[in-house]
Amino acid sequence: MKIAIFIGSDSDHGVVKDALAILKEFKVSFGLEVTSAHRSPARTFKLIKDYEEKGVEVFIAVAGKAAHLAGIVAAHTVKPVIGVPVESSSLDGLDALLSTVQMPKGVPVATMALGKTGAANAALLAIQILSLKDSSLVTKLKEYREKMAAQIEAKSKKIQQKS
Amino acid sequence: MKIAIFIGSDSDHGVVKDALAILKEFKVSFGLEVTSAHRSPARTFKLIKDYEEKGVEVFIAVAGKAAHLAGIVAAHTVKPVIGVPVESSSLDGLDALLSTVQMPKGVPVATMALGKTGAANAALLAIQILSLKDSSLVTKLKEYREKMAAQIEAKSKKIQQKS
Amino acid sequence: MKIAIFIGSDSDHGVVKDALAILKEFKVSFGLEVTSAHRSPARTFKLIKDYEEKGVEVFIAVAGKAAHLAGIVAAHTVKPVIGVPVESSSLDGLDALLSTVQMPKGVPVATMALGKTGAANAALLAIQILSLKDSSLVTKLKEYREKMAAQIEAKSKKIQQKS
Amino acid sequence: MKIAIFIGSDSDHGVVKDALAILKEFKVSFGLEVTSAHRSPARTFKLIKDYEEKGVEVFIAVAGKAAHLAGIVAAHTVKPVIGVPVESSSLDGLDALLSTVQMPKGVPVATMALGKTGAANAALLAIQILSLKDSSLVTKLKEYREKMAAQIEAKSKKIQQKS
Amino acid sequence: MKIAIFIGSDSDHGVVKDALAILKEFKVSFGLEVTSAHRSPARTFKLIKDYEEKGVEVFIAVAGKAAHLAGIVAAHTVKPVIGVPVESSSLDGLDALLSTVQMPKGVPVATMALGKTGAANAALLAIQILSLKDSSLVTKLKEYREKMAAQIEAKSKKIQQKS
Amino acid sequence: MKIAIFIGSDSDHGVVKDALAILKEFKVSFGLEVTSAHRSPARTFKLIKDYEEKGVEVFIAVAGKAAHLAGIVAAHTVKPVIGVPVESSSLDGLDALLSTVQMPKGVPVATMALGKTGAANAALLAIQILSLKDSSLVTKLKEYREKMAAQIEAKSKKIQQKS
Amino acid sequence: MKIAIFIGSDSDHGVVKDALAILKEFKVSFGLEVTSAHRSPARTFKLIKDYEEKGVEVFIAVAGKAAHLAGIVAAHTVKPVIGVPVESSSLDGLDALLSTVQMPKGVPVATMALGKTGAANAALLAIQILSLKDSSLVTKLKEYREKMAAQIEAKSKKIQQKS
Amino acid sequence: MKIAIFIGSDSDHGVVKDALAILKEFKVSFGLEVTSAHRSPARTFKLIKDYEEKGVEVFIAVAGKAAHLAGIVAAHTVKPVIGVPVESSSLDGLDALLSTVQMPKGVPVATMALGKTGAANAALLAIQILSLKDSSLVTKLKEYREKMAAQIEAKSKKIQQKS
Repeated sequence: MKIAIFIGSDSDHGVVKDALAILKEFKVSFGLEVTSAHRSPARTFKLIKDYEEKGVEVFIAVAGKAAHLAGIVAAHTVKPVIGVPVESSSLDGLDALLSTVQMPKGVPVATMALGKTGAANAALLAIQILSLKDSSLVTKLKEYREKMAAQIEAKSKKIQQKS
Repeated sequence: MKIAIFIGSDSDHGVVKDALAILKEFKVSFGLEVTSAHRSPARTFKLIKDYEEKGVEVFIAVAGKAAHLAGIVAAHTVKPVIGVPVESSSLDGLDALLSTVQMPKGVPVATMALGKTGAANAALLAIQILSLKDSSLVTKLKEYREKMAAQIEAKSKKIQQKS
Repeated sequence: MKIAIFIGSDSDHGVVKDALAILKEFKVSFGLEVTSAHRSPARTFKLIKDYEEKGVEVFIAVAGKAAHLAGIVAAHTVKPVIGVPVESSSLDGLDALLSTVQMPKGVPVATMALGKTGAANAALLAIQILSLKDSSLVTKLKEYREKMAAQIEAKSKKIQQKS
Repeated sequence: MKIAIFIGSDSDHGVVKDALAILKEFKVSFGLEVTSAHRSPARTFKLIKDYEEKGVEVFIAVAGKAAHLAGIVAAHTVKPVIGVPVESSSLDGLDALLSTVQMPKGVPVATMALGKTGAANAALLAIQILSLKDSSLVTKLKEYREKMAAQIEAKSKKIQQKS
Repeated sequence: MKIAIFIGSDSDHGVVKDALAILKEFKVSFGLEVTSAHRSPARTFKLIKDYEEKGVEVFIAVAGKAAHLAGIVAAHTVKPVIGVPVESSSLDGLDALLSTVQMPKGVPVATMALGKTGAANAALLAIQILSLKDSSLVTKLKEYREKMAAQIEAKSKKIQQKS
Repeated sequence: MKIAIFIGSDSDHGVVKDALAILKEFKVSFGLEVTSAHRSPARTFKLIKDYEEKGVEVFIAVAGKAAHLAGIVAAHTVKPVIGVPVESSSLDGLDALLSTVQMPKGVPVATMALGKTGAANAALLAIQILSLKDSSLVTKLKEYREKMAAQIEAKSKKIQQKS
Repeated sequence: MKIAIFIGSDSDHGVVKDALAILKEFKVSFGLEVTSAHRSPARTFKLIKDYEEKGVEVFIAVAGKAAHLAGIVAAHTVKPVIGVPVESSSLDGLDALLSTVQMPKGVPVATMALGKTGAANAALLAIQILSLKDSSLVTKLKEYREKMAAQIEAKSKKIQQKS
Repeated sequence: MKIAIFIGSDSDHGVVKDALAILKEFKVSFGLEVTSAHRSPARTFKLIKDYEEKGVEVFIAVAGKAAHLAGIVAAHTVKPVIGVPVESSSLDGLDALLSTVQMPKGVPVATMALGKTGAANAALLAIQILSLKDSSLVTKLKEYREKMAAQIEAKSKKIQQKS
């Protein structure tokens, strides 16, 4: 298992949907857990240890509001930790973003954009990190980028026909 | 010992100065520790346990940036936890405020104003909580309020003479 | 009666629903009132006095916009006052949050997260404060935390089966 | 006495300096008091009554942080109340601005710009209000505007000579 | 005619509905115009002059986004000008609020809360200003306040029966 | 071809609808492309060159989130570049606005309001720029302004009949 | 005269220093005036007309706080108007930025970055606009860009020697 | 060479000082360049290619304002890119933070905290990423964490002696 994904609440499941699809597309194995820095701290610490023992190389933590999950994972491992802030019903996600990104000196969290976009990018960044050891992923990442650019060109043509 | 005060960095010592003076004025015993949710998590968890065993009734946590200290203490005790966000060199303290106050359902942090004002008020709120069991503190709190109102009146007269 | 809950408008009734359920679950008696710092100040001051005479130990004030209710209660009692900011139709609740939390030195308000989450946590913090005098509440609070952690684990399994 | 100015703290004295000068220039009588919605509520209520009896027609309230002073004055009088938010050491004055301006339906506060500019404008708005009954003030206000426009033209020439 | 209300767009008509009802309830005559500081500046300047000639004593300007309408009216009259910022589809109304309230020294705008609440309060503030010359309005304003407080008490009872 | 419009995503097509209508109304020729600073950088650079060769005089770039499209176009041409920030699902468009407007010294982007309004104004500003060389556009622009003012007056009458 | 620069206050003179130097370097003639949308509206309207008669092709307006200057100029001309928001002592310039950029449909303001950077870029954008009619400016603009890139490379070498 | 650090301006040199010290302490080789996404785009693209050829595994980009540097690097490589937003003279760094973190789906930037703290953490995250292939770095990272925790404990004792 290469990647552990922790989501702070089962309501964040929709947020990671695209991320899971990307990991499957790149054939990178992962584990998914619901766990909270505040509501299940013991479980969180145990999961970090368990997944490290399973050989996980990158952690992804997804949380909203006073989003401490990524920071607390980062405090308990020296593996790279990617944080995805999630917008909740108020404050437009600024709370989760600042709680995730403003880590103190010594304990970095690689913070992504808010919500689904950020979760998808967390999967891609994890793959980019793993690609340092696995050159087959480099090839796939380049193909992914090319496909993305091709799709944009296709959409451009479609829109020009409509205008 | 009644109150444990955790500051996330020794640079926050100035922030709690007035708070310590208030606790001394009210003759409420306290312990002061520098500890970080991210940079010394094991120490933080041990301190929570140690202070609970010393009979501490209220925790005060003071931290800046992605201020997780109060939240992490609150996740490990059912004693009331008071959080004081501290302004750092950027973002005007909004990061610390939102990281402290936006706790998820189930784990409250009693959040105070930013900085020195908030730290002083954390001391007063802790005393107000302790006063539920110790009526001598009620008397002192009322005297504190009266003194405060009298000082305002005195300052008003001073300013009127200047104008 | 142990707790007084003041809501600034009858439209905030939905915001405190979970809070009331928690208080009932913990068998903590409470009174609920609609009252406004600005639109019914005399009533607010009378209610503070009345509830203090009924033996209330903690006040909870729930309000939106220029949310002064918690502050004005705190100015008239030395009992702990918990403030719950409520998001209104504009400014994402930042107005209520800052109006509640940025209290001056001398008069603390224990500020919770915005909205329903914050109201539920206000109930829990009030219970945590009362538990200093009533150890049966300590047991219940620990059970509540354990149940919460167990629910997270159960949800995690459910999601893993879906993925 | 026509105008009552309440400042929430003696440290706001500098903020109202230009405002006092304007009132003197327009020969409008005023009273100045330090009083706080939270730290001296009884004094604040008494001052509102006292100044109403002295025939005051407009109240000006100047406060920072969770600036409730203007709102609390407005809740106790039907005279026009002008609020001046003051920037404190954090949050750039956004706390005071939102606490002052976001009043609920039924109790308006005429909110000015932050700080010294706002205080000066509070004095001018108070004079504009009084000018409805005193046409000599209309003349002076128009002269003030003309002088202001003339000063801008003079400054423009000065700068053109420098460039 | 006592009050002129300018709205920056016909889409703001809903925003002033309660305000118009209040003015009718208090039997204060008013004129309502759609006009824009940017899209119909000449019309705006003409309307200011026309309404001043009709004896208008207070101007109310309602606008969103870079809300300059109140400021531009204030620049062309020494009558009191009340500004109501309106939330548009982005930025939560912060743009309109800051554009309205942060006026330079010399030209005040009495800024109200965002949206419908602010518009209703603009009507009430205008009446409070007019009441300096018309004591019958003072009586009505006090009755309005009493009715408001009574309604809150009634709502409180209703909610207590539901709980 | 006079104007090139780049949109960062096909989902921004709705945002530029009014802009395209304005360009057609003014009979100014334009090209429309979907292209991204990040997801199709090579395509973006090629398009800038291609459109410069086609004689384009003004570029318009429309993008959301970390909106770099306008900046990156501006870095590769000395033609005027107009940037339109688009609000996405979080942060109220503040991310796109700041990413577009806060360009470093040396490479300006003419930033418009958020969303559809900004896109329509981008078209108008582009026409205003082109009008420096084509006086027929000046006449049309003045007519556009007059029509706009007339519409406001018409709407005002309609609303007065309803009130 | 090609460009008119209006600054809202003589205190903004420092803000436009680099902008003036750039215009001199490019040998583009300009006029500089202090004038305010609110404090000298008549003067502002007269200056717009005067400078249009002098053949000015682009207006630059520099202002802080509720920065209406650029918007008000844009409302009175169909020439391109560039707005430079200036940070004042509070709110970090967000007030000036939003007041300048969030213009309604029909009246665009080409908004630059805050402060000195924005003013310098306003000068460059004005030159870019003028370059549509004057190809000698295109050459100079390209040289300016090349010099800028060369300076960066030189600074990079200097820093590498220090490290 | 393992790591390439690009700073958007030579004024950001102070920001990366601690980061460089950390890389030296961990004996990780790096290159440092001043280059700008907007002011030297060609140089930036060339440097990305050059450093990729030198075997660089992680890019770090440090920039302020509309901070596009990290995003533009990320658009041209599939190596992990770490972005460090830098606070400039206005907007408290919110502009740089949002411009860096809110990347679109497909092109992640691992965003760090603002300023010096973020730069130091960028160095540590880069080392954490490299440690996936070099277990000697894992040992050093764990020692770094232990030293950090020990320092906190030592500072705590020092402060307790002072109190």
